[in-house]
Order: sequence, then C-alpha cells, then structure tokens
Amino acid sequence: EGPYYQRYAMYPFLIFANALQNKKPELGIMDYRDGLLIKGVSALVNQTNSVGEFFPINDAQKGMSLASRELVNAVSMAYYYGDKNSSLLSIIETQNRVSINDAGFAAALAIEKGLATPNFKRSVQLSDGAKGDEGAIGILRSSVKSNQITLMLKYAKHGMGHGHFDRLSFLLYDGGDEVFQDYGSARWVNIEHKDGGGYLKENNTWAKQTIAHNTVVVNQTTQFERQVQVAEEHAGTPYLFEVEDKSLQVVSAKENNAYPGVKMQRTMAMIALPDVENELILDLFRIQNEEQATYELPFYNGGHLMSTSFDYETINTLTPMGTSYGYQHLVAEATAKIDETSSRVTWFNGHTFYSLNSATKLDDEMTFGRIGANDPHFNLRRDPVLIHKREQTGSTLFANVMEIHGTYNPANEIPINSFSSVNDVRILVDTETYSVVQITLTNSKKYMFSISNQNADLDKKHSIKAGDTDLTWTGPFQLTTTQD
Amino acid sequence: EGPYYQRYAMYPFLIFANALQNKKPELGIMDYRDGLLIKGVSALVNQTNSVGEFFPINDAQKGMSLASRELVNAVSMAYYYGDKNSSLLSIIETQNRVSINDAGFAAALAIEKGLATPNFKRSVQLSDGAKGDEGAIGILRSSVKSNQITLMLKYAKHGMGHGHFDRLSFLLYDGGDEVFQDYGSARWVNIEHKDGGGYLKENNTWAKQTIAHNTVVVNQTTQFERQVQVAEEHAGTPYLFEVEDKSLQVVSAKENNAYPGVKMQRTMAMIALPDVENELILDLFRIQNEEQATYELPFYNGGHLMSTSFDYETINTLTPMGTSYGYQHLVAEATAKIDETSSRVTWFNGHTFYSLNSATKLDDEMTFGRIGANDPHFNLRRDPVLIHKREQTGSTLFANVMEIHGTYNPANEIPINSFSSVNDVRILVDTETYSVVQITLTNSKKYMFSISNQNADLDKKHSIKAGDTDLTWTGPFQLTTTQD
Repeated sequence: EGPYYQRYAMYPFLIFANALQNKKPELGIMDYRDGLLIKGVSALVNQTNSVGEFFPINDAQKGMSLASRELVNAVSMAYYYGDKNSSLLSIIETQNRVSINDAGFAAALAIEKGLATPNFKRSVQLSDGAKGDEGAIGILRSSVKSNQITLMLKYAKHGMGHGHFDRLSFLLYDGGDEVFQDYGSARWVNIEHKDGGGYLKENNTWAKQTIAHNTVVVNQTTQFERQVQVAEEHAGTPYLFEVEDKSLQVVSAKENNAYPGVKMQRTMAMIALPDVENELILDLFRIQNEEQATYELPFYNGGHLMSTSFDYETINTLTPMGTSYGYQHLVAEATAKIDETSSRVTWFNGHTFYSLNSATKLDDEMTFGRIGANDPHFNLRRDPVLIHKREQTGSTLFANVMEIHGTYNPANEIPINSFSSVNDVRILVDTETYSVVQITLTNSKKYMFSISNQNADLDKKHSIKAGDTDLTWTGPFQLTTTQD
Repeated sequence: EGPYYQRYAMYPFLIFANALQNKKPELGIMDYRDGLLIKGVSALVNQTNSVGEFFPINDAQKGMSLASRELVNAVSMAYYYGDKNSSLLSIIETQNRVSINDAGFAAALAIEKGLATPNFKRSVQLSDGAKGDEGAIGILRSSVKSNQITLMLKYAKHGMGHGHFDRLSFLLYDGGDEVFQDYGSARWVNIEHKDGGGYLKENNTWAKQTIAHNTVVVNQTTQFERQVQVAEEHAGTPYLFEVEDKSLQVVSAKENNAYPGVKMQRTMAMIALPDVENELILDLFRIQNEEQATYELPFYNGGHLMSTSFDYETINTLTPMGTSYGYQHLVAEATAKIDETSSRVTWFNGHTFYSLNSATKLDDEMTFGRIGANDPHFNLRRDPVLIHKREQTGSTLFANVMEIHGTYNPANEIPINSFSSVNDVRILVDTETYSVVQITLTNSKKYMFSISNQNADLDKKHSIKAGDTDLTWTGPFQLTTTQD
C-alpha cells in the first residue's frame, strides 16, 4: 500500500520488538531474517523525497513525512539497533525529535557529539511482496548536479483495496516541489467537514483510476478493467535497475497484463550532462500492440504554463472529457494538433522552471486539462494536466525528456536559465528489441541513448544501425555523444 | 501605485539624499519636510504582511518584499538617518543583509550588540496624494491573540495608468498566507516566455477590473466605467480609523463616486474576543442607492472548500460568466440560492481553516467561481472565488465575519478547532445613520457592534433601538456583549 500505510503498520511491530529486545534479548529479534525490521525502516526512509515527504502512492494523504510520530520512534530504533549508521543521524536531525527511550537517547547523544553524516537516502529498488518477487518501485536520486531531484517509477503489486491502477506511473520531485505529481487519495484524514474524514466517493471514481496517474491509458479505460482481484494476480516486472554510474542511472520495468494484448515497458534514465544545469530525465514508454488503439500519457504538472512550441486552442465551454474511468472528472481547457516532430512545454512553479520535451508524431494531440468535473462537493483539487494522445495501429514509443532548470525570485525579478537546454528529442530506433533516442541540446550537442529491450545481461554485446550510425555496446544500455 | 512601485521609485531619491548628506550635510536633507524620506521608508515597511511581502495592490507582482535590494538599502538608511529606531533592526534582521555604507555598518553593529527589538509594524492609516488628502489605505494588525493577522482596506486615489478599479477592496493575511487575496497584476516581470515579461492583455481585461477585487460590483460593471481620468478625479474618503484599543480596531471609509447614484461605505473591525482563538474580522459593506440594482461581493479565498451551511449545485458545463468588465474571465462552478439568514463557508489552505460567516437574505445567491475563461495563452491563475450576489431595490448592507481558526498537520493528522466559533451574523439596524450587527458565537454568547455612519466624533452621544435592545454609546462605534 505504500509508505503512507507502512509507516502506520510498522509501529506496533517495532514497539513489540522493542519490548522483546528489552525483556528477551536472547531472541535477537532485531537480527531476525537478516535484520528485517531495521531494513523496513530504511525502506521507509528511502520512500521519501529530499525533504522527507513520503511518495503519496496508492491511498496516501500527501504531507505525511518522516516528521510523523511513528517515524520518530522508528528511525531512532533503526539507528540504535542497527549498525549505528551515522547518516541516519542526519535524518534524525531533520526530525528534530527522538523517542523517549534508550534508542532516542543514544541518537541524541551521537548527534550532540557531531557524528551525523549526510546522504542516507540513495537510489534504490525496493521489491514488493512477501518474498520480494512481486514487482518493485525504483527510486533514482540525483547526486552529481545536486541532491534535489527524486524520481520514482512504480511497478509493484497492486496493494489490495487500497491500490491504485497506476502500473508504470512515475513521480518527479525537485526538492519538496512536485514536478510531476501523484494525486494521492481523495480524502482528508480525520477532517470532519469532508465526510467525517473517511475516503470520499471520488477516491474510487477518480484517484484510483489510471488516468489519474502519470502512465499510459489505453482506449480511455483503466488498467485491469479496474478489477482489484485481477490486478492482484499480476505484479509489475522489474527489467533493469542500474545506478552505479551516478551520471547515468537507469530503471526499466514491464507490464504485460494491465490491458489485454498490450505489452508495456517504461525506461527512465537520470542523466547528468556536462552542459546542462541539472540531471535530465529521459522517459521511454514503449507499447507493443497489434491492434489499433488510443494511447494517452498524462503528465500532472505542478506549475503554471509558460510557453509551448506548438499552437493550441483554448476552449470556452468546458465539459467533462468522458463518462467513466475517471475521465468524467477531467475537463479539457485547450487542445493542440501537433505538426512537429519534437514538442516542448515549459512551466514555472513559483521559483523554478520545468520543461517537457517530447518526440511527437503528426496528428498527435496535446490536451491541457484540469481535474474537477462531476465533483458535487468540491472534493477534488483543481490540478492541471498535460495529456499526450496518440492513435496508433501497432506498436509505439513515447519518448520524453524532462528538465528542471533555472530560477526566478520575485524579490529581485531576474529570471535565470528560464529556457530548456533541450532542442529536440527524436526516436531513431523503435523495435521490440531495441529503442534508440537522440537528444539534441540547444548548443547543438547530440546524445544518443540506446537500450536493449529484451536482454538486460550486463555482458551481452549489441550491434545495430540507428539512422546512419552503427551502434555497438555491451550491457543493456549505452549513452553516446556526437558533436554535429 | 502602491508599495510595489514605491519601492522602486524611492531608490534614486534615497541614493541622491545619501550623496547630499555626505557632501552637503548643511542642507539637512534627511530632515526635509519633517523627515519625509525616512517616513517614506517607514510607510513602505508598513505596507507588508507579517512576513514582509508587499500588499500586491494595483499593478504589482506578488512576492516583492522587504528582501528586495532597494529595501535593503532603504531600511538601513532609515535606521541610521532616522532616530535609530531599535525595532527597525528586527526588520533588518529578517532582510539578512545590509547596505555597504555607513548606514548598513551602523545597523549591523547595532544588531550584533543585541539592540534589535520587535514589532516595528503597526496598525496605521497611510494617506495618499501629494498633500496627504486624497484618500488612504488603512492597515489593521492583530496583536492580542497573535501578531499574524494583517488586514488592509483600500480607499486611496486611483494611481493613474497603473491603478486598479478596486475602491473599498480589502486584503486579509494570516502570516504570509492569503486568506482573501488581491490578484495583483497579470504579468510575469522580465520572464520572456510571457510576452517578453511586459504587461499582458489580461492585465487590462481582468486584473484592473472591479470584479477582480474583494469589493462590491454594481450591476456587473467596473467602477468609474473603467475610465482612468474619471477615477483620478475622486479619491476615496476616510471616515474613521481607531486602533488604540487593540481588542477593537476599526477602519471605515466611503466611496460615493465609483457608481452613479450609489454611495458606499465599508467598515472593517478587528475584534479580539475572550472565547475565540484569533481576532475576528467584522466587515460591514453598506450601499445607499435609490434604484434597483445587482450587487456582487467577491471573496477571493485562498484555500480548498471544506463545507458550507447551504446546499449548492455544481455545474458541469462551464461557460464564461459574462462578456466584459472582467466577467468574461470567470466561470461559475457552483451556485446556491440562499434560504437562511446567516450562511457559512469554511476553507482549508493546507494548515489552517478559514470561515466566512455572512448575514444573508432570502434569494441571495452564492456562486463558487474560478478565474481562467477567455485566456488564450494561460496567462491567468486558476484561482477560486466566492461571490455573494444580491438583487435589491434601495439600500442594503453586506455583513460578514471572517475567522481564521484551527490547524491541521498532515504528519500527525489531528485537526484542531476546524469549525468556526461563529454561529450566526444578524443585521439588527441598517439605516443611513446607523448599522448594528449581532454576532452569536457557537457558545451562545452574543456580541453587538453598532456604528454611527454619518458622525464619527469621539464625544458624540448615540442612542437607538436595536430590536428589543436600547443602545446608547459615545463616539463612532461600540461593541457590547449580552449573554443569552
């Protein structure tokens, strides 16, 4: 169900373990299953953005964080009963509280002694299921240009009644700011004004539906025909997770059961390039399908629209975009027919600019939409979305490059680096076995990312032709650069 | 034009004065006109909320603040060349910088010595015009329950081409949070994406119009028929400004020229009551008119709707609310016909609750609207508004009580004081000479606020009947309490 609930569920286990450790230390509960409890705390801490807020996946309320009472207890325990990891102390420093017990006392003393070290959180794949073999979430964190960017790709198991139909959805943070957000749950926990604080009707009709997430929707329906039982039968499939090279961290996962006859693979890479301010996020969403279908890839952006590379038409009579699967809660505010091969949208969120550069095809559509239709009690936030739509027979690839760039401070009014460094994104190869994408920067420098989609062996040699270029590499993927 | 521009315009005067003071101290430039320059800086500092952001009135971009380079210089100068006011040092502390000159050095030294004292900003009326006789803005600050609430009522002169048609509009802040906001200008200063950073078309069609502000709109038109020349001829009229009693601070002003044949008076009081968490804001907007007319009083609220005391109908086909005077940029998302005599709306802004309690009449309408129609380049923010509408022949009074209450933290999920302390608001007397309003709290305690609308003499005796109660008082207003 995600960290929001895990935080809560862990608490009694830890309290019980604490009691056992005190009264029956001979049981060695903290070492049980290779330190499972302590690992659980570590997993929780890692499921946060750089300011300590949990990823609001599945039925989660936004804002729950490492500051919660449960985590104050948990992190002190993990420090004390684990291996006295000094970087956990820096997490405890941000909590600004410790538990009132031996663990908290030890942590406080260690902090007082100046033992805290930074960077506990890392790029990590956290597997799901009792045996850890039912999918995972992959977390990439920037560390070359800054340590502010956090990306999460979700290919876990469904999560029973609290799961959302969001296979292959992603989240992107710039510090604590949502660049592309997960809606979270439609609920105000304990706030009596809103149905007594319980789940709202819109949690089912909106928040759980696929269109409410940053993942491809096929034929305007929800994954697994929104059947929880069916979704439970199949977890997502990790394909690769390589984060050793901090300038080229890659996660890739597959989902072949969400829509009948449709195979999906999403590869996301966090790439630090010498000429670009921050790490770029490359996003390759490949869909294998023999039928004709409509694909829609939403991006729930967090800022105000600055500019687009294409013309769009705004709409003055706003009506719901559909009647079910969540579309009844969306309105289209503007639409565009695309007539260029690479498209760009830039937003501003109050202090930073964000750009999305997309490889586009003739007759692709871009829709600027907003949440809030069919919402008789104003239960939903009026958040914006950009939906990239494509009608296609056979397979297709959505290739996007996201960039967090620049800054603007209203007290000095000097915008810095307000335009994207990316000039265009082009798909060179799109087959079942390989994807190759070329990113051209505004300084004309070109980068080519190639990935083997069916063989992730580290020592496998690949050799293909991408346009005029012969590409050879070893291992699942490669990034090359060519000056024009 | 308001503090946003004043900040900028002051800068050369101060730099020039600084040079004169250094080279020709015999001129005594800092003492000119009773220390006009230093007073100007003090006026600027006072035109900010409790976190130092300027009121974004007229053509102002939000976020400009005491942190700007101009104010860093100005405040250090005001400290050094003024009377070494120790409370200015606390302002300089928040700036975290000083100017690199004698003034900045003196300020830094004084701060280092621990001389800074708090509470420079105060409740103050700042008059407008070259001679100070062309209207004013009135600023009330809370100091009994907290020092977080800032209210500003605007009854100044127009401000030429940069003025907005916003006579008798108000702003309310809870710390740095906008409880009821001014839109500011439709502009991203220096941001090239948005028409090169200049004023946007919507600055005229939306931001300057009366409906874009928290003040009454008559017959869906803009004040002064949106004629700048006409607006320039008449400033607002201060009626009273009494802030000695920090538990009952009152500002009242009149505007008799904005609409032909319509006299308007707005009285706002900041009231600290023993049983209420924060200061309440009482708002009496009286309209004198012989004709039949439509009145709309917008409240540009900052939070998410929590609950209402009345039923409303949401609308699924959203269309612009009008064709001109700014209405073309609004859509109605929900409307309600009121069938109660006191109505309540509660919002939540992420950490605090806000309630608006309104005396209502049968067939009044409440509309939940949103900005953003006819906006072909997404230049406008999609901000929400509540519009209280009344069709009336002859005079009428809008009586509202605003309350900032409670808190909710998503990391502990415990809502505190999430419901308004006000049970109802009732108008007991509404004549040209007197207004009397009764506020009943949820604990049944009743308070009666009475004001003389035509005679503000401090020693004038008043005696009237309000329902069954005989009221007598001396001076312009009185607050009494009666247990039921």
